[in-house]
Parts: sequence; structure tokens; C-alpha cells
Amino acid sequence: MIMQSNKISIIMGSDSDLLVMKAAAEILKEFGVSYTMTVVSAHRTPERMFDFAKNAKTNGTKVIIAGAGGAAHLPGMVASITTLPVIGVPIKSSNSIDGWDSILSILQMPNGIPVATVALNAAKNAGLLALAILGTSDDEISDKLAAYKEGMKVAVLEKAKKVEGYEGNN
Amino acid sequence: MIMQSNKISIIMGSDSDLLVMKAAAEILKEFGVSYTMTVVSAHRTPERMFDFAKNAKTNGTKVIIAGAGGAAHLPGMVASITTLPVIGVPIKSSNSIDGWDSILSILQMPNGIPVATVALNAAKNAGLLALAILGTSDDEISDKLAAYKEGMKVAVLEKAKKVEGYEGNN
Amino acid sequence: MIMQSNKISIIMGSDSDLLVMKAAAEILKEFGVSYTMTVVSAHRTPERMFDFAKNAKTNGTKVIIAGAGGAAHLPGMVASITTLPVIGVPIKSSNSIDGWDSILSILQMPNGIPVATVALNAAKNAGLLALAILGTSDDEISDKLAAYKEGMKVAVLEKAKKVEGYEGNN
Amino acid sequence: MIMQSNKISIIMGSDSDLLVMKAAAEILKEFGVSYTMTVVSAHRTPERMFDFAKNAKTNGTKVIIAGAGGAAHLPGMVASITTLPVIGVPIKSSNSIDGWDSILSILQMPNGIPVATVALNAAKNAGLLALAILGTSDDEISDKLAAYKEGMKVAVLEKAKKVEGYEGNN
Amino acid sequence: MIMQSNKISIIMGSDSDLLVMKAAAEILKEFGVSYTMTVVSAHRTPERMFDFAKNAKTNGTKVIIAGAGGAAHLPGMVASITTLPVIGVPIKSSNSIDGWDSILSILQMPNGIPVATVALNAAKNAGLLALAILGTSDDEISDKLAAYKEGMKVAVLEKAKKVEGYEGNN
Amino acid sequence: MIMQSNKISIIMGSDSDLLVMKAAAEILKEFGVSYTMTVVSAHRTPERMFDFAKNAKTNGTKVIIAGAGGAAHLPGMVASITTLPVIGVPIKSSNSIDGWDSILSILQMPNGIPVATVALNAAKNAGLLALAILGTSDDEISDKLAAYKEGMKVAVLEKAKKVEGYEGNN
Amino acid sequence: MIMQSNKISIIMGSDSDLLVMKAAAEILKEFGVSYTMTVVSAHRTPERMFDFAKNAKTNGTKVIIAGAGGAAHLPGMVASITTLPVIGVPIKSSNSIDGWDSILSILQMPNGIPVATVALNAAKNAGLLALAILGTSDDEISDKLAAYKEGMKVAVLEKAKKVEGYEGNN
Amino acid sequence: MIMQSNKISIIMGSDSDLLVMKAAAEILKEFGVSYTMTVVSAHRTPERMFDFAKNAKTNGTKVIIAGAGGAAHLPGMVASITTLPVIGVPIKSSNSIDGWDSILSILQMPNGIPVATVALNAAKNAGLLALAILGTSDDEISDKLAAYKEGMKVAVLEKAKKVEGYEGNN
Repeated sequence: MIMQSNKISIIMGSDSDLLVMKAAAEILKEFGVSYTMTVVSAHRTPERMFDFAKNAKTNGTKVIIAGAGGAAHLPGMVASITTLPVIGVPIKSSNSIDGWDSILSILQMPNGIPVATVALNAAKNAGLLALAILGTSDDEISDKLAAYKEGMKVAVLEKAKKVEGYEGNN
Repeated sequence: MIMQSNKISIIMGSDSDLLVMKAAAEILKEFGVSYTMTVVSAHRTPERMFDFAKNAKTNGTKVIIAGAGGAAHLPGMVASITTLPVIGVPIKSSNSIDGWDSILSILQMPNGIPVATVALNAAKNAGLLALAILGTSDDEISDKLAAYKEGMKVAVLEKAKKVEGYEGNN
Repeated sequence: MIMQSNKISIIMGSDSDLLVMKAAAEILKEFGVSYTMTVVSAHRTPERMFDFAKNAKTNGTKVIIAGAGGAAHLPGMVASITTLPVIGVPIKSSNSIDGWDSILSILQMPNGIPVATVALNAAKNAGLLALAILGTSDDEISDKLAAYKEGMKVAVLEKAKKVEGYEGNN
Repeated sequence: MIMQSNKISIIMGSDSDLLVMKAAAEILKEFGVSYTMTVVSAHRTPERMFDFAKNAKTNGTKVIIAGAGGAAHLPGMVASITTLPVIGVPIKSSNSIDGWDSILSILQMPNGIPVATVALNAAKNAGLLALAILGTSDDEISDKLAAYKEGMKVAVLEKAKKVEGYEGNN
Repeated sequence: MIMQSNKISIIMGSDSDLLVMKAAAEILKEFGVSYTMTVVSAHRTPERMFDFAKNAKTNGTKVIIAGAGGAAHLPGMVASITTLPVIGVPIKSSNSIDGWDSILSILQMPNGIPVATVALNAAKNAGLLALAILGTSDDEISDKLAAYKEGMKVAVLEKAKKVEGYEGNN
Repeated sequence: MIMQSNKISIIMGSDSDLLVMKAAAEILKEFGVSYTMTVVSAHRTPERMFDFAKNAKTNGTKVIIAGAGGAAHLPGMVASITTLPVIGVPIKSSNSIDGWDSILSILQMPNGIPVATVALNAAKNAGLLALAILGTSDDEISDKLAAYKEGMKVAVLEKAKKVEGYEGNN
Repeated sequence: MIMQSNKISIIMGSDSDLLVMKAAAEILKEFGVSYTMTVVSAHRTPERMFDFAKNAKTNGTKVIIAGAGGAAHLPGMVASITTLPVIGVPIKSSNSIDGWDSILSILQMPNGIPVATVALNAAKNAGLLALAILGTSDDEISDKLAAYKEGMKVAVLEKAKKVEGYEGNN
Repeated sequence: MIMQSNKISIIMGSDSDLLVMKAAAEILKEFGVSYTMTVVSAHRTPERMFDFAKNAKTNGTKVIIAGAGGAAHLPGMVASITTLPVIGVPIKSSNSIDGWDSILSILQMPNGIPVATVALNAAKNAGLLALAILGTSDDEISDKLAAYKEGMKVAVLEKAKKVEGYEGNN
């Protein structure tokens, strides 16, 4: 399978977020869509964040996936600088207040600067959403997504059999 | 300005949601991007919802914007049927519990079926996000978004002058 | 004890929910009421969910028990299709936000489509509620429920003795 | 329309709850199902609550609908005494903490004593749930529920037209 | 130390609550105030709860301490029947929603029936509050409470020394 | 009716709290129990608060009722200084976060210093709890509380008639 | 009174925040401390925000007060760029989720970049905190703060008289 | 490195808080700024707390860092007595309700008495904020803070390399 030019940028506030964010990378790899992944901290490297966001489109990026925890400003700040769609992944970091802080910091963006927020720690879904966005102009990806959905159905049917075999079921 | 073929579908659970959701329509109109807007209730018209989601792509829709309040299943259920990107707008309806119910019902989708969630009542941002998605393959829209961002800066500078003129400021 | 024809359908969004949901099956078995149990995912198998809900009544089901976590749409979507009473069990899944997401997604249904929601992870209570519903037209089940309640009283009295024997109590 | 013998008991903690709870009565009346409605306070009239719950089944009641606000103990306490299914309606009373207190007080019942909880202030849904319960052994009610669902679909289609006619829609 | 006649009744919804509630017993024993301790379940043994509450005053009880988790109705229901002061201890039981359910079920009592609520799992404080109540008419207990407070000060000073000795402190 | 010597002290953080706190005074007056009422701010007059708490018992106070909003430190700080029972009334002040701040600031006291917390804005219940505490050594007050409870029952029965007369009830 | 050189910068995300933020300006004016006040939006004018933060210290600013609502990134982003102390004022804007979003977005900053957060809408306290910070090296301001505190005590005593004069108080 | 005279006072409600609070001491030590650290309990040693706060300024303290959990009154009470800036560290203690209690008890101070609140358990940030405050009149500290920020950038770049080397990244 030939990798296409880099289409998705995955960034995260800290390397400790990799444990969660690698699921985004894995699903992109499964679909054969190229990505770059690095650490960009809105708070510790604001200039790097600015440069990243400013140049993302010129560098060929189509969609940005940004994961962050706590007072999670990375997705929203990147979205304030680029015109690319930004997908935000709230991460339940240590000392987070049950994840509420990262969810609300990413989701509740003001009028004018949307962030496409996914569920807590849902980096895989961020990857799938990025693929759906690419799929709006790429039938191959769109077809693969349709096949992926079919695969999920088959998996459910197998799980159904397992549960139907539960002792006492009838 | 010539409308392009229908690219965005805006749906909502009830006509009472129009008060919020029309902001999505207005921003699309401002950008000259065509849309359709109608009521599709996941709970009151499940078949209609199925048909809508099943046929959306074939009908030429690129992005779906779905707004709903309370136990807001519409965005997630549509996302489960289509491969198009679905943007969810949590609506703070009457008897909602401060909007938490619609936010969590839309945001916390399981692995495999993402919904791009925006802020509470943020239909305008849903429209802008849809435009950013179209912009990944349409430079004209992307350029308009860049201009729109410039316009926001100008507006802030005007507001800044107003606040700087506040009595006592120096 | 002769099993009656299948009266209760227990469904869940994933096989990982079986750990919680089997408590519903066990209490039904204890009461000698027949049930079927399987996996039906609103998001991964929407057609299967539709077929299940559409045919439940014709298949002889009297009450549906549906458990799901996160953005838990299964109970509400099934309730939107069938006229049977649907009991929803919010499940505190991993990455759930303390269970709030599943509770609110199941509980806060709009006017017209109720879901009988029980406590977080309370599959046993879902089973007992289903029995109480059957008991409205089945005196044998109703009598068994009365006996079950008596049994709970006896159990409390035994626990009371244990606590009364706590060192220092007087 | 001939009223059947009293099948549903609607109780509430205070007469101020009537504003919410009357929606349960109205839907039952619409379906031609008889009900009684009165005030029973778990906290101000505990004996009356006991007598009510103890005698409900003997008095011919099939389903109890109980609405209460704040530390809402009425539905759970009635459920602890009767074997009838009890539907709880959390009411957002004044000085309530956004309704969370009544929701959690009704929903989070311990193992052994379920309460079928509906959404905040959702007395109409409590009525519909009671009808679905009666419908498990009464085909006439079940058929009416199916017709009621059809009526909701028609209403949505009319609302859809209204939204589709919104200026700018195309 | 001679035990006085039984002045405090400690009750709890289940024997699993003993792990928390024994702290109330221990502080009473430390103060030489007699108590009884048993299990009374509002939901599983409503008649027992009624009898307990009805007879508590006649039996010589001055203050009731009631601990319960989840939809915690025990303290409020006992308070509805007796004129004695009732102290409620919210218990963070398994499947509790972070303790919010027990706190709100105990705290948010309607006008007319107060429950003196203490912190989550704070059975020791419930014991100390009961002692303060007795102390309003018993100088010996009141004096012991004053001494107890002095003891806490001494303990803090010792802890202070420990922290002041922390390496790097100066 | 002859007032007894001052038994209850009602304090509040600000005169704006009088709107809520006067309900405590009114119920005490109704029971013929004497009280004093004043403003004591933990944050604006810490010395005054210290003096108040230090001298309350010597001044003949039996029970202290303290109301405060926001970061409500008054009840807990007074409890840290006196051995008298302190009843805390969380007040939902402007800029409060739905009352959560005052509830948690009053309720969640550490081991050793309990505050008897009542519901949000429940000054009347604070008064009734103070009366129940006095009633542990004053039969007249205890008898009046019993009569008061009887009065609540009568009031409920009257409300019940009103609801039973609701059109359509049968 | 002679204004000193500009010591405090007050910034806010939008001119609509002026209603809240002017209280910071007013208290500074009352203390005779100079300030500048303007609009700086992290999301709509990221470069302006960068420039502001980068130059604040060189421009003679000692303390920055930043107010923002919703996903409030302004205080934290400014703090990431400057070494000056930044005071964050969470603002309860329209469509805010009860203020939780702005509180958590400002408060929950990661290790390395603190924001001194004050209460919801508490711009006056932000001003007083700025004054206390200046007071660490300016005795005149520190003395004025002490006098201000004395003034608050006097105000409480006057309020106390008002409450003590409440009818029925004795 | 020569320690300067004691500039920062670190206090905490209990020695169990040392585990969290020592991070404040460590960062101060790293910057060569002198501090004292001890236990001061608002609730168990109110006089000690008063004395501490009253004398802090005279003793040469410039900034106070106060950490506390649960109903965390220490930071606010100290702020009510001193004119020094007080930094509050909410601590997630055992039996805390996810940290909400300590956050709200510290943050939501009334007008007139601000507490500079940092994130849950964020003692390190409290130390850095204290340094920024000292830095308003001490260029050496201010310069060190600038260097510290540079160090954070370097650390992020190293982490970025690690993530960029993640298998599959390209």
C-alpha cells in the first residue's frame, strides 16, 4: 500500500498523551492515510504552536487532530490560527477533574472558531472523523469507511453469539 | 452569487430548534454554500431518520449538521448510518439539565462512530466547521474562511477602541 | 420449574456489558421467567437494532431491558420503534464520565418516547422492574415478588444482628 | 368514551407539583384510561403514604406514577411497600439544585427496589410508560399507542415543512 | 467509666455501611456515651423503619444518627416520623455517582423536616455532632468536647513540627 | 406568650442574606423560643466572628444557626471555635455556581468539626432543627414539634382535596 | 491624587465582558493605581494577544488581569508568554454552562504556567489581588489595603445593626 | 547559592497535605528563594491561624501559599486577616468529592477578599505564581522565571522527538 502525501497532523500537549493519541495514528495507518505526529504545547511552546498552526495548510495538512488535558487550550488556539478543520481530543490526565476540564476547555469555543470535539480519550474516533472529512473529496477513503462500518457489524454479530451462549440464556 | 449544488444538510429534532439552528443556515448563506434544512426526529420518526442518513451521500450531501436537545440521539444515530462527517449541535432545550444531557448524549460516542461536537447552542460554529471541511478540497471556501477570520480581527479592534474609551481608562 | 414462553428480551450494546447485564438474566431465571439475551448495538448495527425493535412484540416479547454506556442511545432508539415498555440500564463503561453520560442519554428522553430508567449498573433492578410489569397481569409473578420482598426483610434482620453484635454496641 | 375501572394512581408530594403532574393525567384521559390523582407526602404524611402503598394493589391499581422534587423519597418509599411497578417523575422544584437532587433521589434506588424513572418534569412520559405497561396485557391500549406513535410522525412531517420553508432554505 | 442510659441510636441501611458508621460508635464510646447500633433499611424493611422511628423517643433516644448510600431515604424518612434530631451520614457506596446521590438525597429535605447532614462518609463527625447536641443540656459532655478540641490543637502542633522538619525547610 | 432567655443565635454573612435567613427567625418566634439575629462575616470581620463564637456559650446560646453563600466559611469557622452545635444554611447568592459552592463549603468539614448542614436556602428547616435540638432537653418544645408535625399532615390533606378535585380526576 | 505610571493591564475577550470587568478598573481607580484596559481575544486576534503578552513587561506592566468566558483561553495563553503574574477572571457568558467552562478553562492550567484564578465574575477581587501583589513592594498600596479592610468591617457593623433591628429580633 | 530572608510562607491544613505541598517548596528551593513551611489548621487551630495571618507581614513574609482539602477554609480565612497576597492550592483529599469541594471553597471568595487559586493539587504552580509575584519587584527572580520558561520549551522539543519517533509516524 502506497502512503499518500501527509494529510493529517496529530499533535498533543505532552508525550504522556501518546498513550491515548496513538489510537488516532493506528487507525490512519490502517486506512493507509499518511500523518505526522508530534508534541506541540500551547502553554510551554506558544511560538511553536503558532508556527505549526500558521504553516499547517501550506505544508499540505488537510486536517489537524489535537489532544490535550486539563485546561486544554491547544485545539482551540490552533483553530484560531488556521482555517483547516481541527479535531479536539479531550484527555483525562492526572489531576484532571474527571475529564470535565479538558472537555469544556475544548468544546465550549466562542462563535467564529469551532473545534470538532470528540469523546473523552477518543483518539480513535478523532482519526475516523479525520478520515470522514477526507472522504468528502476522496471516494477511496469513503469506500474504506463503508467497509470499516461493515466490519463493525460483523464483529457485533460475533459478540452477540457469545452473549447468546451465556448460561441460562434461552 | 450562484448557489452551488446542495452540499450541507442541516437537520434538527424539532421545529423549536430552528431558533438555534438557523444560525448555521445563515453563515452558509453568507458564504454562498447551498444547504437543505428540515426536521428529522430520531425518536418520533426513526424510519425518516434512517432514510435520510442512508441517502444523504447519494443525494450529494457532503456534511451533515444535526442539532438536538435532551437525550440527543439524532447526531449519533445519523453518524451510525452514513459515512459522511456529522457535526452535532447540543441544544439547551427546556427541561434540559443545563445542557449537560444534550452535550453528553452527542459527545460521548463509542469507538467507531464519531460525532464532531461543537459548543452548546453553537449552530454558527457548526456551519463554520462544515465550511472548513468543504475547504479541505475547495480553495474558494478556504479563502473565504481566511477572509472571515480577518474580518473578526477588525471587529475586535473596534471593540477594543470602545473599551479603551471607557471612562477612567488611561 | 417450567419456563414460560419468552417474555423478556435483554439486549446490550457490547459483550463487555454482560458483566453488568447478567444480573438481569439471573433474577429472571430465579423467578422462572423466560428471556432471551443478545448484543444489539444502536451505533454499530443500526439495522439490527431496527429489526429487533420492530419485531419484538410480534416475537412474543412483553418487556425489553436494554443496557448501554457512554452516549447510550440503544434504550431510547428501541423505545422509539416499539410500543413495548423499555427499561434502560445506564452502564458505567470505561472512559465514561462517572456514568453521567449514560444516565443522561437514557433518562432525558423527549415527550412521547419514555424509557423506564433504573440506577447506574442496576441490571438486577431492571429485571425486578420487568417482573413487576409482568405482574400487572400475572398473579403468580406478583405473588413471587411479594415473597421476594419478604425475603429481603429477613436478610436485613440477619444483617441487623451482625451489626448489633459489633464490639462496643450496647 | 367509557372510563374503565381505576388502573393508574397518580400521586405527588405537594399540590404545587400539579402544574407538572397534570400532564400525566391528560395523556391517560386522552387514552380513555381511568386514574386517580391525589397528594401523598412521604415526609409530611408518612402514614398516609404507607396506607396508600399498602392498599394500592387491592384497590385495583395496576401502575403508580409518583412525582416529587428535592430529596424526592416518595417514589422509592412507595416502591418499597408495593409490588406494583412505580414510575418516578423527578420535579425541578424551587430551591432544587437544577433538578439533580430529585433525579438522583429517585433514580439511584438500591438493589431490590426499582423505580422506573423518567426525565425531569416528564409527567407526560410517565403516563405513556404506564400505558405501555398496561399494553403488555391489553391489546386495545397497545394499539392506541401504535396509533399515537403514528400521530407523532405526522406532526413531525408538518414541522419539517415549516422548517423547510424557512427563508434561505433551498 | 459508667455508661449512661442509651442516648444515641446509630442506624444504617446495610451491614456493609458498618465500615463507615463504626466511627460514630467509636467516638461515642470514647466519650462514654451509650448508644445502640443496628441495621434499619427504609427500602427493604419499611415497617421496621417506621417502628424504629415511632418508638425512638419513648425508648430514651435523644439523637438518631442514620447513614445511607445511593438514593439515601433512611435519614429523611426517620426524620419525617420522629421529633428527635436526626443526623444524616451520606455514604459513598459502590455504584454511587461519586457520592452526589447520597448527599443530595439526605441534604435536600423539604420545608418542615430537616436532617442535620454531615460530610460524605463523616460518621465520626456525626458522633461529635450528636455529642454537641447532648452537650446543650449536659455540661459534662460539653466540657469533654472542649477538652477534645484542645487535644486536636496539640495534635496539629505535633504535625506542624513534622512538616517544619521537612528537608529544605528553613 | 413569654419569651424565654436567648437560646438561639442566628448569624449571616451579609444583610442581603436576611431575605433567606428570616425564615429561621419566624419559625422560632412561632414556637416562642427567643433568639438574637445579626450579621457576622467570617471574611470581612474575622475578629468579630472569633469573639462571637468564643462567647456564644457563655452568653447563654444553646444552638447557633449560620447562613452564608459562595465560599461559605462562616458556619465551619464558628464550629471550629465553639462547642455548641452549629447549623449551616447554604445560601444561593448571586454569582454562586448554582449553590454548589456554598453547599460544599459548609458540608464537607474535616473530621473533628461537624456542621449540621441543611438544604440550600432552608433557613426554616435550620430553625426547626434548632428546636429539635432544644427539644432533647425541653419537653414543651418537643411537644410543640409533635403538634407542628400534625399540622403539616392536616395541610397535606387539604392540598390532597384540591388536587383530587382537578378536572378529569375520577 | 497623582496617577502612577501604568502598572496594571486589564484585558478581556470581548467588549461584552466590560460589564463585569469594569469592577476591576473601578477598584484600581479608587486606590489611585493606573491601569490600561482593552479587548484582546485569544481566538479572534491571536497575534494581538501574542504581541500584548510579549510586550507587557517592557511596557511597564506589573500585573495582568484577564477576563474571559466559555472556553476561556486568554488568561492561560497570556501566562504562557509573559513572566508577569496573570490574574484570571472567569466570566459567566451567555451559553456558558453555568460558568463551569470558564472556571475550569482558566483554573486547571498545567504545571509550569499558573494563572491566579478568582471567583466567577469577581473582577473586583481581581483588582484587589493585583493591588495586594503591588503591595508586596509598595507600602503605600499595602497601607491602603489595610485601610480598605477596616472600611469593610465598619460596613458590616452597619449591616449588623440593620439586621438586629429586624422585627421580632430580641 | 545564598538564601534570601524568608519571603514565602507555605502552610497546609494537615501533614498529610505535605505530599502535595512539597512541590511548592521544591520549586522555591530551585529558585533560591527562602520559605518557611508548617501546618496551620483553620478548623483545629483557629487561634494559631489567626496569629499566623496577623503576623505574617511583620515577620517578613511577602506571599502566603495555603493548601487545604474538603471544606478548605484556610486560604480564605488567612486572606481575610492579612493584606498579603494569598495563593490557594485546592487539595483532592480522601473523601473529597472529586476535588470540587476544595476548589469551590477556595475559589468562590466574596467581594473584598480574593484568593489567588491554582489548579487542583497544583502546588508547583503555586510556587511559580509566588515567584512571579516576587518578580514584580525583583528582576533576578523575574529573569530566572524567563530562563525557566526557556527550559520548558527545550523539554517539549525533546518530548516531541520521542513522539515523532513513534513507530508508524512518518
